[in-house]
Amino acid sequence: MRKIAVLTSGGDAPGMNSALRAIIKSAKANGLEAFVVYEGYKGLYEGNIVPADTINFDAYNNLGGTVIYSARFPEFKNPEVRQVAINNLKSKDIDALVVIGGDGSYMGAQLLHEAGVKTVGLPGTIDNDIASSDFTIGYDTALNIVVDAIDKIRDTATSHRRIMVVEVMGNQCGDLALWSGLATGAEIISTSENTLSVEEIVQQASELAKDLSRRSIMIVVSEKRYNIAELAKEIEKATKWETRPTSLGHIQRGGRPSAQERISAALMGIKAVEFLLEGQSGIAIGIIKGDVVANPILEALSMHSPAKAKAVERANKFNKLNKIK
Amino acid sequence: MRKIAVLTSGGDAPGMNSALRAIIKSAKANGLEAFVVYEGYKGLYEGNIVPADTINFDAYNNLGGTVIYSARFPEFKNPEVRQVAINNLKSKDIDALVVIGGDGSYMGAQLLHEAGVKTVGLPGTIDNDIASSDFTIGYDTALNIVVDAIDKIRDTATSHRRIMVVEVMGNQCGDLALWSGLATGAEIISTSENTLSVEEIVQQASELAKDLSRRSIMIVVSEKRYNIAELAKEIEKATKWETRPTSLGHIQRGGRPSAQERISAALMGIKAVEFLLEGQSGIAIGIIKGDVVANPILEALSMHSPAKAKAVERANKFNKLNKIK
Amino acid sequence: MRKIAVLTSGGDAPGMNSALRAIIKSAKANGLEAFVVYEGYKGLYEGNIVPADTINFDAYNNLGGTVIYSARFPEFKNPEVRQVAINNLKSKDIDALVVIGGDGSYMGAQLLHEAGVKTVGLPGTIDNDIASSDFTIGYDTALNIVVDAIDKIRDTATSHRRIMVVEVMGNQCGDLALWSGLATGAEIISTSENTLSVEEIVQQASELAKDLSRRSIMIVVSEKRYNIAELAKEIEKATKWETRPTSLGHIQRGGRPSAQERISAALMGIKAVEFLLEGQSGIAIGIIKGDVVANPILEALSMHSPAKAKAVERANKFNKLNKIK
Amino acid sequence: MRKIAVLTSGGDAPGMNSALRAIIKSAKANGLEAFVVYEGYKGLYEGNIVPADTINFDAYNNLGGTVIYSARFPEFKNPEVRQVAINNLKSKDIDALVVIGGDGSYMGAQLLHEAGVKTVGLPGTIDNDIASSDFTIGYDTALNIVVDAIDKIRDTATSHRRIMVVEVMGNQCGDLALWSGLATGAEIISTSENTLSVEEIVQQASELAKDLSRRSIMIVVSEKRYNIAELAKEIEKATKWETRPTSLGHIQRGGRPSAQERISAALMGIKAVEFLLEGQSGIAIGIIKGDVVANPILEALSMHSPAKAKAVERANKFNKLNKIK
Repeated sequence: MRKIAVLTSGGDAPGMNSALRAIIKSAKANGLEAFVVYEGYKGLYEGNIVPADTINFDAYNNLGGTVIYSARFPEFKNPEVRQVAINNLKSKDIDALVVIGGDGSYMGAQLLHEAGVKTVGLPGTIDNDIASSDFTIGYDTALNIVVDAIDKIRDTATSHRRIMVVEVMGNQCGDLALWSGLATGAEIISTSENTLSVEEIVQQASELAKDLSRRSIMIVVSEKRYNIAELAKEIEKATKWETRPTSLGHIQRGGRPSAQERISAALMGIKAVEFLLEGQSGIAIGIIKGDVVANPILEALSMHSPAKAKAVERANKFNKLNKIK
Repeated sequence: MRKIAVLTSGGDAPGMNSALRAIIKSAKANGLEAFVVYEGYKGLYEGNIVPADTINFDAYNNLGGTVIYSARFPEFKNPEVRQVAINNLKSKDIDALVVIGGDGSYMGAQLLHEAGVKTVGLPGTIDNDIASSDFTIGYDTALNIVVDAIDKIRDTATSHRRIMVVEVMGNQCGDLALWSGLATGAEIISTSENTLSVEEIVQQASELAKDLSRRSIMIVVSEKRYNIAELAKEIEKATKWETRPTSLGHIQRGGRPSAQERISAALMGIKAVEFLLEGQSGIAIGIIKGDVVANPILEALSMHSPAKAKAVERANKFNKLNKIK
Repeated sequence: MRKIAVLTSGGDAPGMNSALRAIIKSAKANGLEAFVVYEGYKGLYEGNIVPADTINFDAYNNLGGTVIYSARFPEFKNPEVRQVAINNLKSKDIDALVVIGGDGSYMGAQLLHEAGVKTVGLPGTIDNDIASSDFTIGYDTALNIVVDAIDKIRDTATSHRRIMVVEVMGNQCGDLALWSGLATGAEIISTSENTLSVEEIVQQASELAKDLSRRSIMIVVSEKRYNIAELAKEIEKATKWETRPTSLGHIQRGGRPSAQERISAALMGIKAVEFLLEGQSGIAIGIIKGDVVANPILEALSMHSPAKAKAVERANKFNKLNKIK
Repeated sequence: MRKIAVLTSGGDAPGMNSALRAIIKSAKANGLEAFVVYEGYKGLYEGNIVPADTINFDAYNNLGGTVIYSARFPEFKNPEVRQVAINNLKSKDIDALVVIGGDGSYMGAQLLHEAGVKTVGLPGTIDNDIASSDFTIGYDTALNIVVDAIDKIRDTATSHRRIMVVEVMGNQCGDLALWSGLATGAEIISTSENTLSVEEIVQQASELAKDLSRRSIMIVVSEKRYNIAELAKEIEKATKWETRPTSLGHIQRGGRPSAQERISAALMGIKAVEFLLEGQSGIAIGIIKGDVVANPILEALSMHSPAKAKAVERANKFNKLNKIK
């Protein structure tokens, strides 16, 4: 193996640039020539592949987003499209490809692997919805942003005695809601894994609202589970407390990566190169119980997160704990 | 004058606690006894008035929201209700009242002044919509939050080549949109004073979108001017670029006050007490061209902000400048 | 068991208040009465023990420091002093004590355990120098502060083509230096475990300084290993690059706890109460490979951190990687 | 006038990149061709001048430091050296030069002006020590960093009942000490303009330390006025309170520019181009009482800041106010 390329795919996530930097440095440290592919699989198909030497990745290590861009490209499911991509790599004698992205991106890496390109997947998504890694690149930063936002919203809620319904990302994985709820003491937490009914939320809020020594009630919910404007109205009607909905939206995706993000990204990036040098391919890298590990992509995609198994129990537990005064 | 009280009214704003601390310290420095009124005019009516000595305001100086709370209380327009409030002050021998809030809160202070209570108003609102002060308490912090949020959103937009429509607070005053737009280089800025039509925005976005060397287009708009979900769809249709709407919502109100916020709040708080000691009443304090000044509340309420006069010209100018590559 | 108390001891650390909140809520959730001891073992001796009900710990969850204070109290090694402390607990019928602090604080908990008081220790220190936990309460926040500070210093170094020597906390444990060095791409990393000689640093810096395409060289060192002013002078003499020393100092200890900090603190706090209810005592709680575990304090104090075993190898590896361009 | 160049000089400051971006955009908006000079006057002498088109300044708008670098270059006082610089500008037909920097940098701009190059100076320094502008580029960001750092240090001081001596930048101008002291409620403030003697500080600290209901005493001092380690020892001896010195150091210079920083920088940058187009030269731009104004550089250098005149009175006033409980 002499040449490797890297691409980012799926939704951007803070820390992708840190992973990129680590992969390229690690490749060079091992005598490999490194390339970057712009705009993910789309760029791979279009031949948008350039030597990494032209770019100072150190300067991007602490910036959000992905400096080699990402793009939607469902056409990659088409074998003929993939063949063009493979030819683009071959024409530059590139032996291996590191893909930073989510489950969908992993599937592309698997298909390339089956076609003879050595591939490694790195978990990059703020949602923490990849079972083969305890933490995905982007999650810690997003969680800090969510926690900071909820803290701010609590200031207003407390000043005005209000109930706030805060919708956070994570449709397939409730971790952002679950853990930000614990970290901010949210009185009601409803996650993707443990979604409370509107009635349950209204009932719990009503119970809390009776206690006038409370100055605020914070309700954190995973996205796309409710019409939060409607939910807020129902709650206001039942509790007689002013209730406001707010969806945190796109601010959750961006921003400078946290310390832990850069570290996880670097450790996985370094290891990705080492696994390739060992001759591995078609693998998904993850951090499991503190160790950087690799699993065959197909296994990784069918894994069940152990955290997921505890998600319902935890949501119930934190939901109860945070109500105690 | 021997005793003064303070209340916060209207929407909470970062820096209100800093103002509170300065007023109370300044009162004590001048030999006055200080009280706080909880929950604004509502608390004044309900007699929720306590000696400031019971509270360590130093500990709240750098926290968001208002630790003496705020509340809606339209009933204060009723003279009989006001009389109860006045009696509550009299029963404690409180001679003067400092009100931190917006224009609506100033009106209450004016009515109390007319009834013989010495009053001073301090401009507290994140929207910067009080003409008698160049800057309101809360505005600098909110502006920093908005700028930080737009920076984050830009990361994602650039990563994916997207157009983003960001709705920020300030329905009566476009300053948050105008200045965050300049600070973040937003390519299209539409403010309360210079609201572009949907057609204008779509046309400007379409023009910019033709240039594929651009990776993102940021559109910052004042709140309640558009249905931003619809606007984003129109733009997407015309430009063929993915376009996403996002409303920053309640995160704009909370959070630790910035350095400048605490300083402005402290300077106005100190001066509020000094003006009262000079025998003034029925006045609104503001910072005009760097100086702390006072105007009769009635004049303050009918003033026209000089910044407002330049708002259209500035919006046009920044809107053009930010489009240049 | 019906009543428990909590104290914080040793250096304050962000997240201590989050742990405190979780312990008290968890105690109440389990029907226990909770107390707090002010000023650590000193307060225990002086009988400064108050019911937790008087304090709204929710309000402190996201604040730095410790709201129940800490204090140096070497006198606690004296058995007679300890007996007074034990009597103070007995006089209030308090059965158990949770101690949040470092190794020194654990020893006090062990001695109380031997004297019949049920005790649990929680790892609270920013240095991450407690072998029985992969992460201590305070470490993630401190690491983020250090990383943010080094990022800022890098701005200046790059602007002026400078070498910067940055001293960070962690005399017994180099984790803050090691991981901030990786996260910021520091070209030279010298940790408590892998301390480079002055000659080695000067030699490495000289080698790097020859490359004028570099704009900055960042050197991160653990505290108290060097006279950094002298070190900077030596480097400047050898490289002819302007070189500046800076010690991050006390800013590393304070500030709002990060998301992960609050979560780890809460999980350990909850578990502390559960272990006590199971009848355990004389134990140190930690997070090992993602799980909250307990070890007998005496074992915990003699454990060797597995991370420590890899500390030299990692320091060497990151030190090399970060030099690659 | 058809071509203009920009350079940054003296210590780097957050917001320099925002000024740069505004100047270049504004030049283009007015049909001018823009160049940047790398490494300040050194680069001007060495002919390190490149067309601004090669750089995406939008991407640097929100980053700290200066992307066109700065450098010490005392040789510029030499007329022959300056002539080389002038020839370099002439050889590229560059008519005008914008210099972003401090007083020393202004002098260079004046000398070039006298030699026939049109020049404008912009105030860039975190110290706020330029009399011809109420605020310098970099000051607001630095002030926020200082305030944030002192807040963190207060957490520790309060947790341990300590006195902290915090040294902040601003040897020629005490604004960073004065205003951060007000913003953080520092009990003792000693600035460049109103430097307390060691005896005064010790005496004031001793007085405060008698009150054991205090948990912390914060002492903020301008840099290079004291040996802060010695000062801390003196205070500790007199008060019997643990006392710690800390110098904030280089973190004060870097980091993302605040909202206000970017705005002031942009307004001054835009105006710099407009003044040049009006035919002005040899001028220093500033923000005075909210307006962007220009003064002849020689006048600017001999101006006395009106803030400076009030500096002693303010320091005394805040110093007293912050001691009140």
